[in-house]
Formats: sequence, C-alpha cells, structure tokens
Amino acid sequence: MTAIRHDVLGIGNAIVDVIARAEDDFLLRQAMRKGAMALIDEARAQAIYASMGPGVESSGGSAANTIVGAASLGARSAFIGKVKDDGLGRVFTHDIRAAGVAFDTPPAFDGASTARCYVLVTPDGERTMNTYLGAAQDLHPNDIDPDTIASAAIVYLEGYLWDPKNAKDAFLKAAKIAHGAGRLVALTLSDAFCVDRFRAEFLDLVRAGTVDLLFANESELRSLYQTADFATALAALRGEARLAVVTRSEKGCVVVSRDATIESPAFPVERVVDTTGAGDLFAAGFLFGHAHGRDHATSARLGALAAAEIIGHLGARPERSLKALAQEHGLPV
Amino acid sequence: MTAIRHDVLGIGNAIVDVIARAEDDFLLRQAMRKGAMALIDEARAQAIYASMGPGVESSGGSAANTIVGAASLGARSAFIGKVKDDGLGRVFTHDIRAAGVAFDTPPAFDGASTARCYVLVTPDGERTMNTYLGAAQDLHPNDIDPDTIASAAIVYLEGYLWDPKNAKDAFLKAAKIAHGAGRLVALTLSDAFCVDRFRAEFLDLVRAGTVDLLFANESELRSLYQTADFATALAALRGEARLAVVTRSEKGCVVVSRDATIESPAFPVERVVDTTGAGDLFAAGFLFGHAHGRDHATSARLGALAAAEIIGHLGARPERSLKALAQEHGLPV
Repeated sequence: MTAIRHDVLGIGNAIVDVIARAEDDFLLRQAMRKGAMALIDEARAQAIYASMGPGVESSGGSAANTIVGAASLGARSAFIGKVKDDGLGRVFTHDIRAAGVAFDTPPAFDGASTARCYVLVTPDGERTMNTYLGAAQDLHPNDIDPDTIASAAIVYLEGYLWDPKNAKDAFLKAAKIAHGAGRLVALTLSDAFCVDRFRAEFLDLVRAGTVDLLFANESELRSLYQTADFATALAALRGEARLAVVTRSEKGCVVVSRDATIESPAFPVERVVDTTGAGDLFAAGFLFGHAHGRDHATSARLGALAAAEIIGHLGARPERSLKALAQEHGLPV
Repeated sequence: MTAIRHDVLGIGNAIVDVIARAEDDFLLRQAMRKGAMALIDEARAQAIYASMGPGVESSGGSAANTIVGAASLGARSAFIGKVKDDGLGRVFTHDIRAAGVAFDTPPAFDGASTARCYVLVTPDGERTMNTYLGAAQDLHPNDIDPDTIASAAIVYLEGYLWDPKNAKDAFLKAAKIAHGAGRLVALTLSDAFCVDRFRAEFLDLVRAGTVDLLFANESELRSLYQTADFATALAALRGEARLAVVTRSEKGCVVVSRDATIESPAFPVERVVDTTGAGDLFAAGFLFGHAHGRDHATSARLGALAAAEIIGHLGARPERSLKALAQEHGLPV
C-alpha cells in the first residue's frame, strides 16, 4: 500500500502559452472560432505567429495550470506531461518546479518541439487558443509511474489528452492504477469542441465510473448532452455522475452529487483582463478543498477565489500566493 | 541627402526579460543590489534561474522598449541590436517587428545565446535586474548601416551599450553618422551603477556635444555629478547639456535646456505593479513629441503618460495602444 505523498497529481499537455492581445477582426480574418481551442500543425503555428502581435511567454497547459494553482494554495502536488529538451521545454520545467510541483517526466531529446499555445486575448478579455501539441502528444503510458500515481489522493486528467492516442492510453493507465490504489480520478472536459469530438467516450468514462469527479463549464456540459437547455443537461448529469462541478462564469458554479445540488456564487472581479485559466484555477481550488476533506460549498468558494485571481491579469498562472489570498478571505487553507 | 524615413531609431541591447516576483529576502540571499542592473555571466545566469520563481518571458531591452513605445504612439521607428538565431532570438525579433518597428540587424548563427535579463519584482513594484548579455554584446560597428542611421530624425542610444567594446564602437559610429546627416543624438544614462563605471566618458559625450538630448533619472544624475544633492546636480547639468530630461518617479520630471527649466508632473497611477520600463517608456513619449516638433511640456506629458501605462502591469512593453491612450487624454499624437 503506497502512502499518500501528493494531494493532487495532474496529467496533461505540457504547454507554453504565447499570449497576445488581438482585435476581433484578427480572429475573423484568421477564421478562428472565438473562445475555442483549435489544434494546429507546425506550418499553421508558424503562420499564426508571423501574423499575430507581440507576445508574452508563460507556462500553461490546462491540467498544469490547475496543479500549479493547487500548489499555490498549499497542496502537495505533482505533474506528468511531456516536453522536449529545448528552450520552451526548459521554461516549462523551470516554472512548474519553481511553483513547488514535483515534475519528473523525462523530456524528449528528438522529435517535435515543446508544445505551444497561441492565446489571443480580445478586448472583452475572452481568449481564443491555437495549440501546436508537438512533444506533448508523445506522452506515453511508459511515462506513467504506478507508484507516483498511487501516491496521490486525487489524479486529475484533462480532456485535451484524448486527442493524441498515446496520451489517451497514458490517461487510462493512470485511472486504472489510481482506482486500484483506492484513489479518486477527476477529469475536466476541457472544451466544448473537444467534447464534440469525443462525446461517447467521455460519457462512457462518467457512466463506467472511470471518473469520480467531473469538471465542466456550461457549454461543455451542453455539448456533452447535446442540448441548448442548461437545466436539461444538468438533470442528465445528476443521473450519471458521482460528483460533478459545472462552472458558469460570473454566475458561479453548481456542484452536483447524487444526493444534493449546491449553487455557489462567483467572486466579484474588478476588471476581467484575460479569462485564460479561469476554469483551470477553479478546478485547483475545488480539488484542494476536496483533497483536504472540505465540504463542497467550501471547495467551490476556494475554486471561485482562485478563478477570480487569474482573470484579473494576463496569463494562467497565479501572480500571487493563493494561500495568502484565501487566508485574507477567511477560507480554510 | 537621405530623406527622413524614421522618427526615432534606437540602438541597444536586444534582450528578452524573464520576469518573476521575488521577496526582498531572496535579493538579500542572492546578494543583489535592489533596484540596480547587474551584468552576470552564463554560470551565474543559470544559478539565478534555478533558484528564482516561475517566470514570464517578454521581449525587453532598454532602448528596444523605448522604440516599441514610440511605435505604439505612432512613430515611424527602427531598432538595431544583436540576437542569436535561437528560441529567444526569434521571440525578440517577432515581438519588435509585430510592434511595427523596422528591425533588420542580422542575427548571429554561432557564439553566445540571445541575451536575457532576470527581472525580479519585489512586492513594492521595484525591479532588480540581472542581465546576461550573450549575443547582444556582439553588436558590431558593421551592424550600423549609414543610410539607416541618416534616415532617422533622432538616433537614441542606451548607456548600457558602453559595456561591450564593440557595441560602444557601434554607438560612436552611429552618433557620428547621425550628426553628419544633421540628425539629433539622444542618450539615456540607463543606470546609476552604469554611470559609476563610465562617468568620465558619459560626461565627455555631453560636453563634446556628441549627445544632443540626455535622459537620466535622479539617481543617475546624482551619480554623474557625484553629489547627493539634486539641486547641485541639476545646476551642473544645466551648464553642460543642450537639452536634458531628468525623471523623478512620482515627482514627475524636469526638462533642462540652456534657456529654461520646466517641471512637469507624473500621471497618477492606481497601483504600481512593476516599475520595469518606466524610464524607457518615458523616453518613448518624450522622443515621440520631440520628433514631431512638440514643445517640451507636451513631450514631457506624453512621456509621463507612457510611463504610467507601463508601471500598471508586469513587463516593459505596452499592453495597449499608447496612441489611443494619448488621444483619450487629449494629447497630440
């Protein structure tokens, strides 16, 4: 029996974000779907970079952002994901370790370069993402160390991992090991278009109990159940998920379990600068609370607070200690 | 006679900033002089990076920041500086060109890697910098194209260039060409410790008229004239400089010319997040105004406005159009 050494372990695409401001016109000219994440190849990546404005490079990746957020709240955290041993790969590795997260996945020494995501932030704070997965899609089941997985109270997976075949297999291997060790498995649906590609498989994961805790936002949930009506989607979710949290931007979130449905408000935000990472950081707060045995309402407050910090500035990694922020707001950390 | 194609051309160290938050204790443990810029070698660069927190990469370099700021105000701008053809070099090149600045200095294909500056921002918003000059110090007089220099109304140089021998020679070559073509030469003193290293040479540049327009902050000016008394330093400057602007943080600036001394206030700032680039952006606004024939008071207001924008967020490149910002404040752009 492996002892618990980590509160949360994330498995996801190891990505460096290149964040730039853009006008809505730019998205139109580039035929980008506003608010969505598109996967792009290297040629398209080069073309987008050549036409976009000055950028700021900041480590990202959905599950990685979540894990760094959990660490900032004080969680013992670990991450598994694939970079190449190149400039951006060293940036990713430095940043996640400097945030106090255990990160020991060996980098690739040849093949595709480290993943990057061109994040275009429009004046309304909305972000539109174009991701070149590069080395991240080479995450392999061999990168999943059974002892490390079994050492984490919660294993957290991102839906984006479903795109590359090897990463999907790594995901399933990790879920199996986690359950074998009596741990929880959490999943975020990541993106409505991602759900559209893998709807049946994601539903199977929930129904088969491969996933104990599901994170989704409103549009992902509607995509999952193919309905425009939120109440209908929520009712369907209630009948299938053990525990699920649906985030609704400024309307807060809904925590759904078999025996109760809790609504929790968002934290007020002075100015929405960039919504990148809002969902990731909400998950960070909720996972932190859940791993520490807090009730769902408290976990939801922690999630809302972490999300509020992240949308007040550019980038998806906290700019200040979330633990200190939570303490200021009287939340238990 | 070359026609004017650029309002401002900057020559400086081509640097990518790696910005991280740090506590004062960290600076103490690392024996760093708070608020200063230190030149470091590659081994020290690696040691600092390994011990500092998560970073955000953003193109920087003092004169480069100024030129990007001038372009954001609407100036026709160009930059000369040296990167290597590596990851950070491509980031620098992309960002400055995406900002609308002409940048055609050929990159180095071997030798030291692209310069980076570890910018440590303490909770008070002050920044402490450690710069590995790398490829930037290989800027060579051959990189100074006479026709390009003669095409700029103002050639703007950074004092930091005085450190590498070849860059200094490039600086002097550019100043000579500019004056030969009847253009103005501007210089920023860059840093009090930089002034301490090159005091006699900088004074010579001012006295000999190699520099027509001098930028300094209060501590640089006191270092130049080796006095703790600001009024004494200002009187000395008045007797020697054709035109000089001394910035005084929240106290605004003083514009000194042979026939007049003008004081101009700072723009109020809601919250000082990071002072990196404040001096650089002040120079951007003043140079823009000066190149467009505005009076000193108006140029100083433009400088103050650009500086106010930059200290409200992390990083030394504008996050919004300075032209639009100036228009909102009724300033002529």
